[in-house]
Amino acid sequence: MPAKSAVNRVIKQIIEVGDIRIGGGELAVMAGPCAVESEEMLFRTAEAVSKEGAQILRGGAFKPRSSPKAFQGLGEPGLAMLRNAATAWGLAVITEVLDTRDVDLVANHADILQVGSRNMQNTALLKEVGKSCRPVLLKRGMSSTLEEWLLAAQYILDAGNPNVILCERGIRTFETATRNTLDLSAVSLVKELSGLPVIVDPSHSTGRRSLVTPMSKAAVAAGADGLIIEVHPEPENAACDGPQSLTPAEFGKLMSQVKRIYKAVIENGE
Amino acid sequence: MPAKSAVNRVIKQIIEVGDIRIGGGELAVMAGPCAVESEEMLFRTAEAVSKEGAQILRGGAFKPRSSPKAFQGLGEPGLAMLRNAATAWGLAVITEVLDTRDVDLVANHADILQVGSRNMQNTALLKEVGKSCRPVLLKRGMSSTLEEWLLAAQYILDAGNPNVILCERGIRTFETATRNTLDLSAVSLVKELSGLPVIVDPSHSTGRRSLVTPMSKAAVAAGADGLIIEVHPEPENAACDGPQSLTPAEFGKLMSQVKRIYKAVIENGE
Amino acid sequence: MPAKSAVNRVIKQIIEVGDIRIGGGELAVMAGPCAVESEEMLFRTAEAVSKEGAQILRGGAFKPRSSPKAFQGLGEPGLAMLRNAATAWGLAVITEVLDTRDVDLVANHADILQVGSRNMQNTALLKEVGKSCRPVLLKRGMSSTLEEWLLAAQYILDAGNPNVILCERGIRTFETATRNTLDLSAVSLVKELSGLPVIVDPSHSTGRRSLVTPMSKAAVAAGADGLIIEVHPEPENAACDGPQSLTPAEFGKLMSQVKRIYKAVIENGE
Amino acid sequence: MPAKSAVNRVIKQIIEVGDIRIGGGELAVMAGPCAVESEEMLFRTAEAVSKEGAQILRGGAFKPRSSPKAFQGLGEPGLAMLRNAATAWGLAVITEVLDTRDVDLVANHADILQVGSRNMQNTALLKEVGKSCRPVLLKRGMSSTLEEWLLAAQYILDAGNPNVILCERGIRTFETATRNTLDLSAVSLVKELSGLPVIVDPSHSTGRRSLVTPMSKAAVAAGADGLIIEVHPEPENAACDGPQSLTPAEFGKLMSQVKRIYKAVIENGE
Repeated sequence: MPAKSAVNRVIKQIIEVGDIRIGGGELAVMAGPCAVESEEMLFRTAEAVSKEGAQILRGGAFKPRSSPKAFQGLGEPGLAMLRNAATAWGLAVITEVLDTRDVDLVANHADILQVGSRNMQNTALLKEVGKSCRPVLLKRGMSSTLEEWLLAAQYILDAGNPNVILCERGIRTFETATRNTLDLSAVSLVKELSGLPVIVDPSHSTGRRSLVTPMSKAAVAAGADGLIIEVHPEPENAACDGPQSLTPAEFGKLMSQVKRIYKAVIENGE
Repeated sequence: MPAKSAVNRVIKQIIEVGDIRIGGGELAVMAGPCAVESEEMLFRTAEAVSKEGAQILRGGAFKPRSSPKAFQGLGEPGLAMLRNAATAWGLAVITEVLDTRDVDLVANHADILQVGSRNMQNTALLKEVGKSCRPVLLKRGMSSTLEEWLLAAQYILDAGNPNVILCERGIRTFETATRNTLDLSAVSLVKELSGLPVIVDPSHSTGRRSLVTPMSKAAVAAGADGLIIEVHPEPENAACDGPQSLTPAEFGKLMSQVKRIYKAVIENGE
Repeated sequence: MPAKSAVNRVIKQIIEVGDIRIGGGELAVMAGPCAVESEEMLFRTAEAVSKEGAQILRGGAFKPRSSPKAFQGLGEPGLAMLRNAATAWGLAVITEVLDTRDVDLVANHADILQVGSRNMQNTALLKEVGKSCRPVLLKRGMSSTLEEWLLAAQYILDAGNPNVILCERGIRTFETATRNTLDLSAVSLVKELSGLPVIVDPSHSTGRRSLVTPMSKAAVAAGADGLIIEVHPEPENAACDGPQSLTPAEFGKLMSQVKRIYKAVIENGE
Repeated sequence: MPAKSAVNRVIKQIIEVGDIRIGGGELAVMAGPCAVESEEMLFRTAEAVSKEGAQILRGGAFKPRSSPKAFQGLGEPGLAMLRNAATAWGLAVITEVLDTRDVDLVANHADILQVGSRNMQNTALLKEVGKSCRPVLLKRGMSSTLEEWLLAAQYILDAGNPNVILCERGIRTFETATRNTLDLSAVSLVKELSGLPVIVDPSHSTGRRSLVTPMSKAAVAAGADGLIIEVHPEPENAACDGPQSLTPAEFGKLMSQVKRIYKAVIENGE
């Protein structure tokens, strides 16, 4: 059980990104493709997710892949495409940074810096994003305890950046029917322990399209402050993560169901 | 990923217990103490959970404890107390059976037989409850894959008993902040794969009182057909599992929040 | 970390089975097929393993399979075949018991009763084998902590049977390259904590023929008191577990390598 | 099960460091403190481990700690101390690098660069050490499959550095009696799959002094090419990892036992 003193608990951190106040009583939705593949695809996706109510465009320009043979992302040109597509459709941008040397570059194009699961304990990177003026979305490591996750957040807070958003994205267990095991009890518990906003990733955690909507609803019922969801105009042609990407139409249906659950949660007075 | 043929999928199994149709469009709520301790305590609990809307009384007469030194339950006298308290307050009874030799005895007192996590792959017991006329609630093993869980259900179905209710109660992972890790993606997935109703146990899975309500709401949002919840009039004096037991008042508050979520789920047309 | 008081530590339990003293300074080797398939096959295997130095014949008559469709064993006739083959070649018999109602039956044919991983927390069965006069080999549950394993042993000890042999057979982890993850640190640690003899199962733990010999050597170097190994005259035709079964020739080679390691361990004065 | 094509298998990679040929038929032993604390302590340790037969001095100058409040290492001055102590006692140096920007600095002082568990999938760092002329010891990630581990090695190989040493250091499981679960089957299996030399870390994997010697012997019996062991002149005063550090005397005893096992392995003709 994590010591209550593992992190310096904030009362309740609200993080402003453009017009959205993450953790401040409205649901933050980040949507977009796993990887930036082309400007055309990105504009189509940005248009679609914006119309369905997402406020933030996600997409990877630097991709941390298990295999060196897998697509590693478009790099800097991908960052510019993200910014252009987001601006065109009134969205903010979140994207991942992998290398201490790239933090400034990514911060020039993105509104939120993402630190991925594989780098959750990359302390050099945590310190570097902690010096940035951008909010940081910190994904839970694949096999990180809540305590380690909160201590990783503390690295960023200690470096001077108070704007940390936690993201539960599933943990590694023996179960192989889903890509990871989404740990929704962690959502309630880290909010209770840290006061930081928590976002849930139902796409990477389950790895199955049919589970993205039920897990989005469950996440919101568990108290999540937002969702990060993979949407692709043509999942069957996606460069990565096609099996769990939603089409824009599926994403629209998800949004309407999730909103109804969120309303019921709010009415409960929480 | 479980082969689709792991079990013989039923279209949609609805299980009638007294007035309740589990899996049939109303939320089944089983509540009561971890263990039957005394008749007086049981009557107080039955009254309280009945008034708050539970339909089924839970409570262990035979307890499967890790240590031989821990309280092993009252045995047969506990079964009679359960039946009496349930009858007095118009509730059905669910209780655990541990030994092939006790199946008839337990079936004489209970409406639903529970097979616990520790016995999920006790194939002799599965075959024996499969010969019973009582519905069986089959808890997922602590480290069972969905496929193994569904195959355990198949042992019961094959022995001639079609009335199997699955119960997700958390799996064992590296995380120690919660007693187990509640796997809500399993709820959606085993329903999809098997057609059997699925109940969620937010008490044993989390082991923390503060998480029981958020996880109950999340379970219902994920599509669960019911909940099984530990309620004790005096959690601080409970013979076991006090830290996760709700007081009747807390249980009442949970019920009102859960109903609001369930209504939003139903309105979504699922 | 298990409380040192989890079990009542024995100074050093030595268990006599026929001419062998398990835990008493000689290596106990149990070998044979996963399941008893036919008398002819069993006699061939018994002859082979006896000639290579095994002292105990293993083989399942009652098989605890994940699927009800899989071969469930020959039952009582299989027990008689085991006894006959063992007697013919001067071996003792170890076989699994699954049901409280079968303990006496199995004890009539076997020298050692095996409680399998799936039943490690089947407390009714633990109590029943605890009343038997036969030594019990208690396999570690698939996801049991050392503490739970030792407490399961305590159920048997408390019921009056001091002759408990522990068996490490791999635990369930996220790794899929091996069937389970063999936890050899557990061997040293449970010996230290309990004083009971410990046997290692390199066949079920790895599920890969090529790993059986290296893990047997490692087990002996870690201080194991014996090994339990799957040997089949024709692994490609085995009713179960063919991929990890050794041929008699492979088993012979394993024995000669293991003996050299055991000699080096003994010379170290342990 | 990892695809055989996960990595480009080398026939058998032998890595020369000073006078030692790692993977070339002699046991490589790396020993020293968890962290470099002072020049005086380091000289005492280097003297002791050198006299007992270690060939390589280990010690962290940059420490990747879970908490930002924990000792983060001495940094560059620590690197110089390591080099001085090693030179004085005829040892090579291995130490960890955490940041892409520090690779050249660390390579100037160390003979082997260590990439730690937390950075096993820090692909930016893998690519950077792949450009270095120094051999790299790649620790397995806390919850990495063998396939992911070998793919991480492939990042280094693909960047032009053929001198990769794998290091098994325990994986994260549900078991809490040991700090991690040492997976010795992985040692045999990654050697078989990759041809790269494999080193075992019995100190971090177990976190218990009493298990370091048995697991060292088991590792060698399983086919490990070497060991990396924490040794500290005064474990009770160590800045980190005292509970698993050996005194020089304990290390000496370990070496004599391990050598006997290694001799038995060699005689087996492997």
